[in-house]
Amino acid sequence: MSEAPRPSPLLRPAFTGLLEALPATTPFVGPETLERRRGGVFALRLGANESAFGVSPRVQAVLHRESERANWYCDPEHHELREALAARLGVTRGNLVVGEGIDGLLGLIVRAFVEPGEAVVTSLGAYPTFNYQVNGYGGRLVFVPYREAGDNDLEALLAAARRERAKLLYLANPDNPSGSFHGRDAVTALLEGLPENCLLLLDEAYAEFAPAEELLPVEAEDPRLIRLRTFSKAHGLAGMRVGYAVAAREIVAAFDKIRLHFGVGRLAQLAAAAALDDQAFAGTVVRSVAEGREDYRRLGQRLDLPTLPSLTNFVAFDLGSAGRSIRMVELLGERGVFVRRPGQPPLDRYVRVTVGTEEERAAFAPLFADALEALGEERLEPAE
Amino acid sequence: MSEAPRPSPLLRPAFTGLLEALPATTPFVGPETLERRRGGVFALRLGANESAFGVSPRVQAVLHRESERANWYCDPEHHELREALAARLGVTRGNLVVGEGIDGLLGLIVRAFVEPGEAVVTSLGAYPTFNYQVNGYGGRLVFVPYREAGDNDLEALLAAARRERAKLLYLANPDNPSGSFHGRDAVTALLEGLPENCLLLLDEAYAEFAPAEELLPVEAEDPRLIRLRTFSKAHGLAGMRVGYAVAAREIVAAFDKIRLHFGVGRLAQLAAAAALDDQAFAGTVVRSVAEGREDYRRLGQRLDLPTLPSLTNFVAFDLGSAGRSIRMVELLGERGVFVRRPGQPPLDRYVRVTVGTEEERAAFAPLFADALEALGEERLEPAE
Repeated sequence: MSEAPRPSPLLRPAFTGLLEALPATTPFVGPETLERRRGGVFALRLGANESAFGVSPRVQAVLHRESERANWYCDPEHHELREALAARLGVTRGNLVVGEGIDGLLGLIVRAFVEPGEAVVTSLGAYPTFNYQVNGYGGRLVFVPYREAGDNDLEALLAAARRERAKLLYLANPDNPSGSFHGRDAVTALLEGLPENCLLLLDEAYAEFAPAEELLPVEAEDPRLIRLRTFSKAHGLAGMRVGYAVAAREIVAAFDKIRLHFGVGRLAQLAAAAALDDQAFAGTVVRSVAEGREDYRRLGQRLDLPTLPSLTNFVAFDLGSAGRSIRMVELLGERGVFVRRPGQPPLDRYVRVTVGTEEERAAFAPLFADALEALGEERLEPAE
Repeated sequence: MSEAPRPSPLLRPAFTGLLEALPATTPFVGPETLERRRGGVFALRLGANESAFGVSPRVQAVLHRESERANWYCDPEHHELREALAARLGVTRGNLVVGEGIDGLLGLIVRAFVEPGEAVVTSLGAYPTFNYQVNGYGGRLVFVPYREAGDNDLEALLAAARRERAKLLYLANPDNPSGSFHGRDAVTALLEGLPENCLLLLDEAYAEFAPAEELLPVEAEDPRLIRLRTFSKAHGLAGMRVGYAVAAREIVAAFDKIRLHFGVGRLAQLAAAAALDDQAFAGTVVRSVAEGREDYRRLGQRLDLPTLPSLTNFVAFDLGSAGRSIRMVELLGERGVFVRRPGQPPLDRYVRVTVGTEEERAAFAPLFADALEALGEERLEPAE
């Protein structure tokens, strides 16, 4: 530099107004964080709805083979994976966008559709990362309580979307954290009832666990609907971060203008394609999960804890009150079991337990019974 | 639904005004796309500045071992990786944020600091993904031409930042696509000269290839500076998408409010930690790359093509005019060689070639000579 400029210190970073006003928040505290706090790993990791059933041998083979090519960038168009998905779903490649898990796609979608201050509608206590993304882009969250029975209140969601002129209506179906499911007719009615300029954002992370004939047919060019799917659940690739959205070509083309083109790595794409290619493996996982849910239902009966019907890879156990549910998560944690619980009424009296392998379920049952016994002996402060 | 609602078709998706106004654009066309167009793979992949020297055996061992645990979500806090980075850089974990490559972090940073319409300054023809992210968030790009010799014009960048009240001044150092490098004193002067509320966004993707003593010392709590590093170059993990930023704790804490917490997968984090642990491997890569650059310099001399001095893993060859450079990329493509070229003057007369392995360089040299001979026989339209 020819003349020495005077230092002009920045007193503090000049964030955007939106970021400056955002409170500190975290969508999920991971089990690794909890393990660091407790000073030891969990013996049973049943809180994040990961697949307990591992990955396809084809996925492992691909990861072994391609580990020496981790030095190559990924295909930013995800061509092969989208081709495979298109063939399977009966859509075109132009109807598909691949992203860093459903979480990444939720950010992309909110960014694409929601101006600061505009409303989006979701169930109170539904997937927190959607809320996180909406807050992060300055959208206005409108919450609709779950019904007492644990399912999403579709009529109330629709009414809220109309009343608030919402840009997005978020529905997880099958639902997390309840496990509930609305069949084809109900979702069709929801779609048909949408107000103008409102999209249905249908999070189908757990679609593989639901009866295929009850899923909404894939009509990818419907401009009112974006569907989200993932390789994290039935396909067991939560650690690779690959999700995809099915949407009208015009929507996908718009995403291409702002999405992170190199967000999903080479190995992740190859692993996802290999997983998709092994439907037999995914089918086995789905059947094993169904058995595990039935196990959990019987366990709930034995322990006198009602369970919610579930079409996912987890089951919610009714502990009777939020206070007991909070304490149960702690008591299980002390016993080396990681589970989570819904934070909002009416689901906050439940504890949500991922379906483990047969061995994990066998290990879980006595620990759950033991924790329940400990809970029974405690005097609980009223928590609600 | 109790009453059948009337369908209210959405005529077209109601994107945000920002997205609606954005032109379709792609930061990079990947070699895979070019291969699909030409109907065959490239024999030599020398266009994306990937490491030609593979990955550490430790990385491969981790990928082999952990492939069966791809079903677990990642640690959203990247604790182990940040601990390892912090120890190595002499900063705290709170000074580090890990993201989906530098590309993902560029998006995060622009989103955090740049309001629509606010200015950012960068060199004309510098890293296109930065421009892509700025456009995607509605920022206003202010371009400063490279100097004729190929290096960033630090004085002009600073003058533009002051004149435009820029929020960010982007500098890649070592630079892409030129390969040039500014030493510690020059970058310190740039930092000291920043106008108020302007951050220096220092993209050090190629830092490992520069002399360590000439890099700016890491003073992580300086609120005027964000440094970006990556595992994609010397560590050879381009396909795993792991970058990180070093910044003041207050900045990292703000990123935590909006970043994608589950964007970098479990295997990617483990691979990056293993790569960081194998500095001997990275050192070998750096030395091999230096040899390769020297090879390319001599090749340029032999072919009568001047080369730019480079402290990266690529070398820019001067073809004399933009027209000849454009044509050279085509001629090399016809010969099975993937390279790229800078698109903006004064660098647009260059072709940029990634340093390949010794075998790849030996294969490249005659193909380059042959393409040059073919170029010499063509009559070129004036292109500038």
